[in-house]
This record gives sequence, C-alpha cells and structure tokens, in this order.
Amino acid sequence: MSRISVAVLGATGPIGQRFVQMLEDHPYFEVEGLYASERSDGKRFGDAVKIRDRRFSEETLDTKIRAMDISRISKNAGAVFSGIPSDLAGTAESELAERGVAVFTNAGSHRMDKHVPILIPEINPGHARSVEQQDTYGRGGYIVTNANCSSTGIAIPLSALDRKFGLREVFVSTYQALSGAGYPGVPSLDAVGNVVPFIDKEEEKMESELAKILGGYSEDGFIPADFKVMANCARVPVVDGHLESLILKFDSSPSAEDVASALSGFKGESHSLNLPSAPLDPIIVRTENDRPQPAYDVLAGSPERARGMASTVGRIRESNGYCKMFVLSHNTLRGGAGGSVLNAELFKAKGLIG
Amino acid sequence: MSRISVAVLGATGPIGQRFVQMLEDHPYFEVEGLYASERSDGKRFGDAVKIRDRRFSEETLDTKIRAMDISRISKNAGAVFSGIPSDLAGTAESELAERGVAVFTNAGSHRMDKHVPILIPEINPGHARSVEQQDTYGRGGYIVTNANCSSTGIAIPLSALDRKFGLREVFVSTYQALSGAGYPGVPSLDAVGNVVPFIDKEEEKMESELAKILGGYSEDGFIPADFKVMANCARVPVVDGHLESLILKFDSSPSAEDVASALSGFKGESHSLNLPSAPLDPIIVRTENDRPQPAYDVLAGSPERARGMASTVGRIRESNGYCKMFVLSHNTLRGGAGGSVLNAELFKAKGLIG
Amino acid sequence: MSRISVAVLGATGPIGQRFVQMLEDHPYFEVEGLYASERSDGKRFGDAVKIRDRRFSEETLDTKIRAMDISRISKNAGAVFSGIPSDLAGTAESELAERGVAVFTNAGSHRMDKHVPILIPEINPGHARSVEQQDTYGRGGYIVTNANCSSTGIAIPLSALDRKFGLREVFVSTYQALSGAGYPGVPSLDAVGNVVPFIDKEEEKMESELAKILGGYSEDGFIPADFKVMANCARVPVVDGHLESLILKFDSSPSAEDVASALSGFKGESHSLNLPSAPLDPIIVRTENDRPQPAYDVLAGSPERARGMASTVGRIRESNGYCKMFVLSHNTLRGGAGGSVLNAELFKAKGLIG
Amino acid sequence: MSRISVAVLGATGPIGQRFVQMLEDHPYFEVEGLYASERSDGKRFGDAVKIRDRRFSEETLDTKIRAMDISRISKNAGAVFSGIPSDLAGTAESELAERGVAVFTNAGSHRMDKHVPILIPEINPGHARSVEQQDTYGRGGYIVTNANCSSTGIAIPLSALDRKFGLREVFVSTYQALSGAGYPGVPSLDAVGNVVPFIDKEEEKMESELAKILGGYSEDGFIPADFKVMANCARVPVVDGHLESLILKFDSSPSAEDVASALSGFKGESHSLNLPSAPLDPIIVRTENDRPQPAYDVLAGSPERARGMASTVGRIRESNGYCKMFVLSHNTLRGGAGGSVLNAELFKAKGLIG
Repeated sequence: MSRISVAVLGATGPIGQRFVQMLEDHPYFEVEGLYASERSDGKRFGDAVKIRDRRFSEETLDTKIRAMDISRISKNAGAVFSGIPSDLAGTAESELAERGVAVFTNAGSHRMDKHVPILIPEINPGHARSVEQQDTYGRGGYIVTNANCSSTGIAIPLSALDRKFGLREVFVSTYQALSGAGYPGVPSLDAVGNVVPFIDKEEEKMESELAKILGGYSEDGFIPADFKVMANCARVPVVDGHLESLILKFDSSPSAEDVASALSGFKGESHSLNLPSAPLDPIIVRTENDRPQPAYDVLAGSPERARGMASTVGRIRESNGYCKMFVLSHNTLRGGAGGSVLNAELFKAKGLIG
Repeated sequence: MSRISVAVLGATGPIGQRFVQMLEDHPYFEVEGLYASERSDGKRFGDAVKIRDRRFSEETLDTKIRAMDISRISKNAGAVFSGIPSDLAGTAESELAERGVAVFTNAGSHRMDKHVPILIPEINPGHARSVEQQDTYGRGGYIVTNANCSSTGIAIPLSALDRKFGLREVFVSTYQALSGAGYPGVPSLDAVGNVVPFIDKEEEKMESELAKILGGYSEDGFIPADFKVMANCARVPVVDGHLESLILKFDSSPSAEDVASALSGFKGESHSLNLPSAPLDPIIVRTENDRPQPAYDVLAGSPERARGMASTVGRIRESNGYCKMFVLSHNTLRGGAGGSVLNAELFKAKGLIG
Repeated sequence: MSRISVAVLGATGPIGQRFVQMLEDHPYFEVEGLYASERSDGKRFGDAVKIRDRRFSEETLDTKIRAMDISRISKNAGAVFSGIPSDLAGTAESELAERGVAVFTNAGSHRMDKHVPILIPEINPGHARSVEQQDTYGRGGYIVTNANCSSTGIAIPLSALDRKFGLREVFVSTYQALSGAGYPGVPSLDAVGNVVPFIDKEEEKMESELAKILGGYSEDGFIPADFKVMANCARVPVVDGHLESLILKFDSSPSAEDVASALSGFKGESHSLNLPSAPLDPIIVRTENDRPQPAYDVLAGSPERARGMASTVGRIRESNGYCKMFVLSHNTLRGGAGGSVLNAELFKAKGLIG
Repeated sequence: MSRISVAVLGATGPIGQRFVQMLEDHPYFEVEGLYASERSDGKRFGDAVKIRDRRFSEETLDTKIRAMDISRISKNAGAVFSGIPSDLAGTAESELAERGVAVFTNAGSHRMDKHVPILIPEINPGHARSVEQQDTYGRGGYIVTNANCSSTGIAIPLSALDRKFGLREVFVSTYQALSGAGYPGVPSLDAVGNVVPFIDKEEEKMESELAKILGGYSEDGFIPADFKVMANCARVPVVDGHLESLILKFDSSPSAEDVASALSGFKGESHSLNLPSAPLDPIIVRTENDRPQPAYDVLAGSPERARGMASTVGRIRESNGYCKMFVLSHNTLRGGAGGSVLNAELFKAKGLIG
C-alpha cells in the first residue's frame, strides 16, 4: 500500500515532535515536509529538537527524519498535521484548507467552527462527515481538530458512561502536566514545589468542547450534549500526564461496579477498523486503591504504537448519589498529536484521504 | 499574667515541632515538658529536630527549648498539646484526660467521639462547652480536637458562606502537601514528578468532620449539618500548603461578588477575644487570576504569630448555578498544631483552663 | 541454544525489578525463580511490583513472569542474580556459592573480597578468572559483583582515558538519583526542592572500587591501580540517572579533542563477543554545551536491550592542566542490574556457566 | 542619624526585589526611587512583584514601598543599587557613575574593570579604596560590585583558609538554585526531575573572580591571587541556595579539625564595624554528617537582618592530602542583593558615602 505524503507544521514544538515521533515508520503516512518558525528554519530536524520522552529517544529517531531540513511547507502534501500555536493556526490552517490540503490540527482556533469536528474516533466518528459542509471541501481541503488536552482524556470515559447511564453533571478538577504549556512554558520558579490554579481559557474550553464532542451532528451543524460541566483547572509539577478528578451525576444511579464494567467493556466505535494508533482498550480500569498515577500509568495502552493513547481510570466510588473517580491520560499523545494522528487514520481507513 | 505550664506530646514529629515553635515565647503558655517516642528519648530537643520551615529556623529557636531534654510527660502540666499519631493517640489521650489533663490534640482518634468537639474558634466556639459532658470533666480532664488538615482550611470559608447563602453541596478535590503525611511519609520516588490520587481515610474524614464542625451541639451530642460533601483527595509534590478545588451549591444563587464579599468580610466569632494566634482576617480573598499558590501564599495571615493561620481564597466564579473557587491553607499550622494552639487560647480566654 | 535457568533474589526491589525486566525474553537466560523478603512471599510478581520506568511497563511485562509466584529460591538454578540489600547479601550469597551456584550480584558485601571481581566486561574482562581462586569454584559456585552505581558509569570512561593518557587524579562530585537509595529510600520531604550532600559509605566505595576495577589481577589477588580518587557525593531530586562532575589529571596533557576522541573511539574489550546487553558504543560523547542531562540522556545506548547501558560524556574542556567533563549513566541499569546481567553474559559467552 | 536616599534599579526582578526587601526599614538607607523596565513602568511596586520568599512576605512589605510607583530613576539619589541584567548594566551603570552616583551592583559587566572592586567586606575591605582611581570619583560617582552568586559563598571560607594554610588549588562543582537564572529563567520542563550541567560563563567567572577577590590591590590595579580554580557548574531543581562541592589543596596539610576551627573562628575584617546586614559569624560550621542542605540551611545567619548572609560549611574531611567539604550560601541574598547592601554599609560606615 502506498503511503500518503504528509507534512508537520510546528515540527520542533512539544506537539510537533510528538507528531514526528508517531509518524515515523507509520503504515499509512510518510513525512515529506517539516515546517517550523524562523528560529529553526534551515536546521536539520535532529539538531532542532530535544526529546525528553524516554520512549521515543533521539537515538531511535529515524535517520531520514533526523536529517530532514526544516523549511517551508511542502506544496504537495496530501495532509498536514498541525502543532502550531492557536494564535497562528487560525489563518494558516484556513489558507491550507483553501489550497486543498486536509488539515489535522491540535490547535484550538477552529474547534468551535460551525462544520469543523472535534473528532475522537472511538466516540464520535460520525462527526467526520461534517467536513463535507466546509466551504473548501470541494477543493479537497478541510480542517479536523482533536480536543484540548484536558478534554480528550475524560471525553472517552464520559461518553462510555453517557451511553449507559445518561450524563447530567460533570464536576472536574484537573492536575495538569507542565508539557501542556509548551516550551519554555511554565517558569521553573513557579513549578517546583508549587501548584498554579489557573490555565488560561482551559475551563471554558472543557465546558464547550465536551458538549460538542459528546453531542450530535446534522447538516445544520453540531448539537451540543445537554449535560453541565463545572471545571477547576490547575497545573502541577509533573512532566507528562493530565490527572483529573471527576465527580459525576447520571440520570440513573449506577453502582461503582456498574460504572467500572461500563468503562472496561467499552471498545469504541472505531474498534473494528484496527486503526494503527488505537489502543486495544481505549479505557483501562485499575482496581488498586492508589492509581492511576502519572509516573506509572501515563504510557498505558497497547500495542506499541498506541502507548500513551489509553485513558486510565481508577478509584471508582459512589458518594451521595454521585460517582467519583480519577482519570489519567497522556496530554501530548492522546490529548495532542496522537489524537490528530488517530483522526487521520480514521479518514484514511474510510477512504476520505489519500 | 502567669503563664500556664504545658507539655507537647510527639514533640519531634512534623506537628510536634510546629507546636513547639508556636508555643515559644507564647503570652499564655509555657512549655515545661517535651515527650516523644523512644527514638528521641533523652536527647536534647535541639538535636532531635530538623526544621524545614524558613520562618521558624533552628537558629531562632529559643535557647531554653533547644536545650530541653525530651522525656516522659510532665505530671503537672496544666495542658497537653498532642501531635502523636492517631493509632497511639486513642488510648494515650484518654488516659491523660482521666488524670485530669486538658488535651488539645491534632490526632483523629477522638474527633467523632460523642462529646469531643472539633473546634475552630472562628466558626464554632460554642462547641467548646461539649467538654463539660465528657466523663473526665469533673477531674479537670478533657479532650479537644482540631480538624483534619484538609477539612480545617475550607471549613472556615464554608461556614462563612453557609451562614449567608445556605450550603447544600460541596464538591472538593484536594492538592495536598507532603508534610501532611508526616516523616518519613511519602517516598520520594512516588512524589517527584507525580501525583498520588489516594490518602487513606481522608475523603471519609472530610465528609464526616465538615458536617460535625458546621453543625450544632446540644447536651445530647452534635447535630451534623445537612449539606453533602463529595471529596476526591490527592497528594502533590509540594512541601507545605493544602490547595483545594471547591465547587459549591447553595440554597440561594449568590453572584461571585456576593461570595467574595461574604468571605472577605468574615471576621469570625472569636474575633473580639484577640486570640494571639488568630489572624486579623481568617479569610483572605485574592483577586489575581492565578492565586492562591502554595509557594507564595502558604504563610498568609497577620500578625506575625498568626502567619500560616489564614485561609486564602481565589478564583471565585459562577458556573451553571454553582460557585467555583480555590482555597489554600497551611496544613501543619492552621490545619495542625496551630489549630490546637488556637483552641487552647480560646479556652484560656474563656477562663476554662489555667 | 538452550537457555540457562536463573533465579532473581530480591526480585521486588528497585534492582530486582530491573533484573526481571532485563531477563525477560533473554537469549541466554530464562527466569525460573523469584525470591523476595517475607513481605512479598506468596504473591504473584505482577501484583508485588510497581514499575516506574516508562520503557519496561507493566503492560509489556511478560505474562509468564507476571504470573510467577514469589517464593524461596529454586534449588536448581544455574545462576542467581542478586538484588538484595548488602546487609543480607554477605551471608546469603556465600551460602549460595557454597551450594554451587554462580552468583551475579549488585550487593556491595563481597566487592572487596580477595578473589571476587568487580567486573565490567568492557574494561576488565580478564578479572573474570579470579573466580577460579574462590574456595567454592570446584563445586561450581562463585561470586561476581558489579560495581557500585556511582563507580560504574565513570569507570568506563576513566579506563578508556587511563589506557591512553595515564590517569593520576580523579576529583569527582556526584549528582545521584533517588532510585539509588532504594524504596522507600529518601523521604520526599528531604528530596523535593533540596540536595542532600551525603550518601552513606558512597565516597569510600568509589575510592576503593575504582582502584580495584581499573587495576590488575594475579593469582595472589587484585593489584589496585595507583591513581587517587577524591569524591564528594550528593543526592538530587532526579528519579533515574547519576550525573557526575569529573576533573581529571593525567600523566600527559591531552587536549579536549584528544580526550573526546579517546572516549568516542573506545569500543571495549568485550566488543567482539556481541553480548546482548552491551551497547554498540559503551561511551557516547555529546558535543552540545548543556549535555548530558538525566531527563534526556539516561536511557542512552543501543540496541534496544542495551538502552540505559551506555555512559554519556559531555562538556569536555581543559582547565589549568586538568580535564573537566560531566558523565551520566543509568544507576539501576548500567550501575545496577544491567551490570550483573552483562557480567553473566560474559561468563556465558566464555563458556563459564551453563 | 539621617538616612541616605537610595534608588533600586531593576526593582521588580529577583535581585531587585531582594534589594527592596533588605532596604526596608534600613538604619542607613531610605528607598526613594524604584526603577524597572517598561513592562512595570507606572505600576505600583506592590502590584508588580511576586515574592516567593517566606521570610519577606507580601504582607509584611512596608506600606510606603508597596505603594511606591515604579518609574525612571531619581536624579538625586545618593546611591543606587542595581539588579539589572548584565547586558544592560554596562552602559547604564557607567552613565550613572559619570553623573556622580555611587553604584552598588550585582551585574557582572564591570567586575573585571581595572579599578572596580569585587567587594566582600569580611575578606577584602581594603579593595574599597580602588574606587578612588575610577575616573568618575572626583564627581562623587563610582562602581562597586558584588561577586557572582556562585563565587561569593565560597570566597569567604576560601579566604579564611587561604590566610591560615595557603590555598593552591580549588576543585569546585556546583549545585545551583533556579532563582540564580532569574525569572522566567529555566523552563520547568528542563528543571523538574533533572540537572542541567551548564550555566553560561559561570565557570569562567568563578575562575577569574575568585582570584581577584582573594588577591591584592595597589594603585596600578588588582593583583590576582595565584591559586588555581577548576569549576564545573550545574543547575539543580532547588528554589534558593547554591550548594558547592569543594576539594582543596593547601601549601600545608591541615587536618579536618584544623580546617573546621579556622572556619568557625573566622570573624571577618569588618567585624568590628557591626554592619547591619553582617552575620555574627560569616561562616557557620555544621558537624552533622548530612548538612548543609538548601531546604534547611539556606537562611542561616543572625541577627534577623543578616539571615541568608552566612556561608554554611559541612562534611569537612581529609582525603589523599586534599580537604573536602560542602558549602551552602543564599544566592540572591549573600550572593546577590545582600552582597551589595553589605558593601554600601561598609562605605557608609567608613564615611565614603552620605
């Protein structure tokens, strides 16, 4: 099978690096272009990046990609993965779509656009058809977004539970990792031994994005789900992995066992497509009394390509008619580059690109 | 005024050290005895402790106390401050009360006992009279507890709001400091770069203690307040200072401004007593968008003796009929030794000891 | 080729877990027994361990090993890998050798014994023959040790340089990781935001072990190398990876370039044996101005089985006739379990076990 | 005694804040002007700073200073304390001196200038007279620098030992705090769980500054001391406090006891002047086996105004004819603002300003 030629925008940033890593030796895609800001222009990729992840080390970086020059975007890319900041992404991604490029982006700029999906293949693959209503679709161009990093990881368990028990209210408090703020991101003097109870626009994003993701789509646009989200977001001194405290209210009153089995039994709507970066189980339920923890569980997921793509749920308990739990997901893999790679895999599997 | 002779139990532990520090040069109390486990028996206090706090440094430690031998408890102490672990405290504190000693304790063992108050002078000073119903009261002995560290800091703002708006539901997620687990406490391999979403029995304590603290008292015992508490507790890599995410439901629907002004205007019932360790304002409201933070706000409170005794509240917002905020308090001062010192000050001010 | 049956002692500790991980699916060895202290006795291995490393995750743990019961040592193991604490290892390992078992140990108890080698295949494989002088050798039993974690990583570059330039003096200051102290190890209150400038007996070990490792061996015993080592050891809040500051004096005065090329060109004496856990290059020289760093370089080494087995050297500079550099190595892989696995691979390759 | 009117340059940076804090309610000086970059121009000081130190809290900040506007420098200041970055300081400070202002600066730009002293009152107060040879001295203007943060703390013990035993060689490896890099400084992704073995130009500064500080001065300029310094510098995840590993060679061979008593007996040349910010003992010797530690010892020094102004030395041992130890000092107090305040106090005590 011939692979689809793709480019990565913002390739040297924290999300861009993850795109490159996930696209190395990918069965569907082949990286043909790397684009970054002027700071890196003309450098070899291997010289411009610094990869902290212990899984994707510099040494294992594919020789071809390591030597690839960072430059302007390849005109003939079949698809583009975008890891550029939202303030640049708005215009840049629209222009690419105008030129007929399929854009899979981590940026937030277009997430709430009328016909742009916030796609998560396991839970709302039907939203993919919204791209057909984008003005640029006739020319082959469109925009598909992945959710904000703190929304993605909980969206999957929330959707699994909404289907079974009818979700009404979500009280969420986050323990978000430093890598979510990009690089240089949070100054170390504010991070070491501290918690910062503020992440700009994060709570608003969670409230609006979760409703769109779990809602429906008709040709007139998206219909938000009608549960309420009350979010308090904070940054903790953890490198990778967003932990989230959830307290949930359902239409019915499921027991903790019911909730655990609904989560662990959830396979996802795209399961039968065997997407390369999809974990065998999108939700892993831990029964120990002190998990999930970022240090131990952030890379959960199998097979190998899907590590860091599962959500891990633990400490499921009932309390006064509410259900309490903690959820962990990898913020730059599942909640970042991995989300868009998976979206592109869905489009490829359905024959919508390539 | 002659000072009351007091002893400290568990003087070399994290809470015991704080007792000693707060009792140095105290206007009401004079430390006459230091007690600790065998490990420290016979040592000089100055050699047995290691004080991390930058406020109370080893150098400023009072010479008399520094040289004091750690030994068995002084028989003639008028009051005892107890910082021993709960598993030892149950029996030991009962025996002291039997012998006619007034016990002010941080241990959890007796908190839910029928006539033992969980006292916070600013909000439930009336609970103090419950000690008169303790069997040992005739002999001069009784037990008074301070609340669990994660309950104390939020109890004060919750009480202030309950009075004005009628509290119905409390959704709380905690970001608790390492010092709350004592020493050696959490292994560093579990703490550095990690969050542990489990603290043994903490959530249960918050749910039961808050109802008792904010409830009433009659001679038949305590009448729990009738709001619901849903708690998720986690440990973060912070040395001192419990941060807590609160989402609250009231009978009425106060605006964020109403809530802020109810908090900042709250003086506390014991205000007129001018207790030495009481902050001028028990609740400090911050209006910046990213406060409170443990690194910057943990020692809030004035005058000097009351530093670390205020609760700092920030990010007050409305959301879907709920009120959201973050609250920070010092877990071993306000939520530990400081709480019991303040309780003893209340008893002294009311003429109940001495 | 039939694999040699082996057992792991202290299997649930930080070093023991690394043994198990490195021996999974090993071409030479097959784990047949897991032994640990009573605390874990009777448990399944998968339930007793908590693996923080992102490379060897719980999910990828071999099913057979995960299900293996932890118990007393298998009588018929051809070799034993020992990760037990030194205070237990002295007697236990001697008894095993008496019973005819080949013991490859990380414990320090026997390192300075007369005919027990501190073996590092790349630099002193000839020391392996010292086991023939051990009393138990006739019965098939003997003891082989790997060096202390802070000695191992620098021993390889020091040996490479000693051969070329004649090493006279080593001034070393360490930045040692928390995992080197075992579990629970360093209390988090001493680790977060702090440095502890003391590791019990560590400096003495470095001074004696390095001289033995880089020295000679005759049937009368080991002849220590005659350079001097002056060591200052400290613990820093890093999970894995010992960084060490080296300032070196040689007989000759090599330039920084000479030193760099001596290091990067060093292949090691055992290179031709293609030992499975040996890195292609035992020493990796980095030329950036701010490397090596634990967060980015701790798992250096290839192929896959040899990750965490290379020493990374950077910032090589001349100063006043001395040569300065920083060296990083993985303290529980190269400086722990990996060292002993590599030693056993050497014995197997030479036909000395199996 | 009328106080001297002073201004602070770069008042909102990490060093500038420390200047303000140390000058609050100072017996010799009164702050009349605060200057900072455009970012803070026109703000009130209390709104522009964020003070992490638990000693100097926002609440205790003097009301007058808190309300002071940040603006352009007061023309009639008798002296200026400069905490601006070195790249700006070169020209700005020269201009001030030209205009007749006495400049006490933390910036490195002028430290190696021919007649500019790197002054430490305890060890080289005689260097103060070098200002008389500066071109601007006739107009009342001159520049006095404090040493680089990593040089200051060790310069004092090195000087004490040099006087007694004749210093020949200094092998130093540093464990430097994050606050030394300013704000925002080191990105948290590089700091948490990591060590960065590189600080730009730091090693060069230590090598040249220490020789100047401990050397002599004649009207022809400074005569560097003739010992050698070999430095390896690294950044560790600690907020405040530079720890340094020292291995020293002397002309004579003092025992560890000799060294300890030379250090603890050292009072400093300026002792009799009773400078307000001078610690009673400029060097504190700790005899425990695991001190000094940043978390516990960084604020060593008494009286209150001198906290954070002493160097703490521990683990003094002999090894192969060398003397080993660890030294800790506060990098933004003793090694920053406090150094310059102390220098100005020396000038005042000698009648050279005012």
